[in-house]
Amino acid sequence: MSRQPGRKQENHKISRELFVLTYGALVAQLCKDYEKDEDVNTCLDRMGYGIGIRLIDDFLARSAVKKCRSYSETAEMIAQVAFKMYLGVTPSVSCSSAAGNEFSLILDKNPLVDFVEELPAERASLCYCNLLCGVIRGALEMVHLAAEVTFLQDRLKGDAVTEIGITFLRKAEDRKQKRN
Amino acid sequence: MSRQPGRKQENHKISRELFVLTYGALVAQLCKDYEKDEDVNTCLDRMGYGIGIRLIDDFLARSAVKKCRSYSETAEMIAQVAFKMYLGVTPSVSCSSAAGNEFSLILDKNPLVDFVEELPAERASLCYCNLLCGVIRGALEMVHLAAEVTFLQDRLKGDAVTEIGITFLRKAEDRKQKRN
Repeated sequence: MSRQPGRKQENHKISRELFVLTYGALVAQLCKDYEKDEDVNTCLDRMGYGIGIRLIDDFLARSAVKKCRSYSETAEMIAQVAFKMYLGVTPSVSCSSAAGNEFSLILDKNPLVDFVEELPAERASLCYCNLLCGVIRGALEMVHLAAEVTFLQDRLKGDAVTEIGITFLRKAEDRKQKRN
Repeated sequence: MSRQPGRKQENHKISRELFVLTYGALVAQLCKDYEKDEDVNTCLDRMGYGIGIRLIDDFLARSAVKKCRSYSETAEMIAQVAFKMYLGVTPSVSCSSAAGNEFSLILDKNPLVDFVEELPAERASLCYCNLLCGVIRGALEMVHLAAEVTFLQDRLKGDAVTEIGITFLRKAEDRKQKRN
């Protein structure tokens, strides 16, 4: 697996619909493969992780962003640059802990569920978009940031918004000490 | 499953990389599920068919194309409008039968395999991008055109180009008679 030379100059944009429908086919296949929603969720997260650890190179190369100096900056970067670049939407960000290591990405509209009205009754615990959590977790790990990433709210489950929670697991001080 | 209102005004473009990697995860999952390459190919084609029969509405609405009057026009439409819209590439088209019902879409570069170098030796018969054949077949069926769609050449298998063959199964005359 490797990048083909010269691809940086190409048109990187495609239509969202094909992606959304292909993602739906992936989730449907996993629902066939696994009886328990939890197993589907785990599998989606693991797949996303594998995608995230490869997507980060593409992100760093194309975004040309500078190093983030705080968890807050990192969360804003994910929302304003990464989500915009890969999904064409910009979640809002809120910090949800006094310790400053827990953030929420809030999506008024989730582009991945464009063709999905609601989850089937027998799949009530399915985190349909759990791949995204894995992608974020994998990408963060590649820039030496351990994090837990989970869906806290989901419009597919009747919540008012879709909310992805990111909890950074190491303190900035620890990372600085390791570097010095 | 239904469209959400107002989505026509939105940004429909996303980055190709996330799609390509997600598609890779789908194929990898099917390779876990099915031992035989032929079964993976069939499954990808079937999934693609399910996507095509839904994507056609989106295509007709957004492309605002007129009705094609020949197989040749239809093939050009698939290459120049649909591929461009959904995958950001434009295959060249050639007619490969005297009867005028067989066409080849030739891709110098296949965007779906950006991150794939070559197929594993034990997966030599895998049609990695077979989903595309199903999408084309499904979409054509929804505009009352029966077709067989298969990969004729594949750069992943060492061929010089990637070639998708489309064979239209009904004659234009038949369709005209049915309409009148």
